[in-house]
Amino acid sequence: MQIPRELDRLRVVLVSTRNPLNIGAAARAMSNFGCSHLRVVNPFEPAFREARSAVGGAAILKNAEEFTSVADAVADATLVVGTTAVRHRDLQHSLRRLEPGARAIRKQLASSRVALLFGSEKFGLSNEDLSHCHWLLNIPTSEENISMNLGQAVAVCLYELVRDPKAARQSEKVTIASSAELERITKLLLEVLRASGYINLRRVADVDDRIRRLIRRLKLPARDSDLWLGMLRQILWKVNGGDYSSKKAQSNRAKD
Amino acid sequence: MQIPRELDRLRVVLVSTRNPLNIGAAARAMSNFGCSHLRVVNPFEPAFREARSAVGGAAILKNAEEFTSVADAVADATLVVGTTAVRHRDLQHSLRRLEPGARAIRKQLASSRVALLFGSEKFGLSNEDLSHCHWLLNIPTSEENISMNLGQAVAVCLYELVRDPKAARQSEKVTIASSAELERITKLLLEVLRASGYINLRRVADVDDRIRRLIRRLKLPARDSDLWLGMLRQILWKVNGGDYSSKKAQSNRAKD
Repeated sequence: MQIPRELDRLRVVLVSTRNPLNIGAAARAMSNFGCSHLRVVNPFEPAFREARSAVGGAAILKNAEEFTSVADAVADATLVVGTTAVRHRDLQHSLRRLEPGARAIRKQLASSRVALLFGSEKFGLSNEDLSHCHWLLNIPTSEENISMNLGQAVAVCLYELVRDPKAARQSEKVTIASSAELERITKLLLEVLRASGYINLRRVADVDDRIRRLIRRLKLPARDSDLWLGMLRQILWKVNGGDYSSKKAQSNRAKD
Repeated sequence: MQIPRELDRLRVVLVSTRNPLNIGAAARAMSNFGCSHLRVVNPFEPAFREARSAVGGAAILKNAEEFTSVADAVADATLVVGTTAVRHRDLQHSLRRLEPGARAIRKQLASSRVALLFGSEKFGLSNEDLSHCHWLLNIPTSEENISMNLGQAVAVCLYELVRDPKAARQSEKVTIASSAELERITKLLLEVLRASGYINLRRVADVDDRIRRLIRRLKLPARDSDLWLGMLRQILWKVNGGDYSSKKAQSNRAKD
C-alpha cells in the first residue's frame, strides 16, 4: 500500500514504557504502517534498543530519539495528542474517539508535525504528561476491557491514520462470468441432467428456467467458467455411455 | 463503546500458532473489542490456555475451542475468511483490503456465523488452509514491511470490524465561548494593554479590531472564559497600581 507522505511528520512518543518488548512491538507496528520516527521518554529499561520482536522495526529502534521530559519530546510539534483508555480519571481535556481524532491528526500532518503520546503499560499517561496535550484520543473498546496492550494500541492508531476511508466503498474485484458463459454452462448442465435421467424423474413444467436461475444465483467467477464447461462435457460424455478406451480412440480419430 | 451485537457470531480461528503468548495477545484484543469466541487449530503449545499477557482475555482463553483440522473449526460458518500478507504466493483467491472486507463480514454477521482465520507466525496460512476460505483479507501495510505481529493483526482486524464509520464524521464536542464572552475578554484585555502602555507604544489605527480578531482566533472553550476574565481583572488591578494590602482593604470595605 502507498503510505500517505505526510505520515513522515508524525512522531510516536512512548512515555515511561516499562517493558522493552513493548517498545519493540510499537516499532514493528510503525514499520508496518510506514511511520519511522520513534521517541522515547524515560524508558524503564535503558537498553530498549535491543528489544526483540521488532521484526522489520530494527531501523526504527536504532534511530529512536531519547528524551528525559515530555516537554522536550514534543517541542517541535504543533499538535500534541495523548492516548487514554479513560476511566478513573477526571479528564480536564477534550476527548475524541479514534475515528474523528485520526482525521484531525491527518489534517494537521498536512502542514506540520504531530506528536502522538502513549503512556506506561501500568499507569498510562500522568496528569503532568497530559497537560502537554492539546486533546486526548480514545480507541473505542468494549466497556468490559478498556485496557489495550501497548503494541496493539499503537498498531490500531497507526492503522486508522493510514487507512483509506474511500477503500471501504470499493466494490469487489472478482469478474463474474458473462451471461453468454452462464448460458453455455446452463445448456450443458441441462443436457447432463436429461441424459442422467434427473429431469425425467422430476417432471416440472419450467425445469429449464429453474436450472437457469440456479446457475445465475452462483455468482460464478469468469475465470472458472472454462473449468465448469470442461467438467460438464466430461460428465455428459460419461452419462452418454462413453468409456475411456472409446474416448481415446475418438480423440485419436480427431487427430487424423 | 457499544459493541455491535452481531460480533457474537464471529469466530476467530488461530491456525498452527507457535507462540502461546500470541494466542494470549489475540485473546486480549478480542476482549478489548467484545469478541468472545476463540478457536485454535493444532497450536504448537498444547498448554496455550496458560498464556500470559492476556489481561482481560482469561475467560476467552479458558473457553477457547480446540480443533485438529481447519475443516472442523469452520464447519458452522457460512463465510470463511483467511488473512494474508500476500507476496511470494500465487493467490488462487479473490483478495479484499481490510476496509471493504470488514464491511462484507459485518453484513454476513447480521444473519450467520463468520470464521476469520489467522495463520502461524512464520508461515501464515497454508494453501490447504486457504482452500477452505471464500476469500482473503489483507491489512493495508507499507511495502517495506508487510508482515504484522499476530496479536497486532488480530487487534487491527477486530478494530475495523467494530469501528463506527459514522463516528469519523462527528464534530468535536468542545463548546466554544460565545461572542458575548469573547467580547468581555477583549474589552478587559484592551484595558490591560492600555493601562500597561502596550497600546500607546505601538500606535496603530485599528488596534481594537486587531485585538478582537486575535481573541476570536483562539477558539477559546466556554468553560475557560471565567478563568480568563478573572486573570485579566487581577492583572488590570495590578497594572493600575493596586497592591495586595490595599486590595484587601478594598475587599473589606466592599463587605461593609
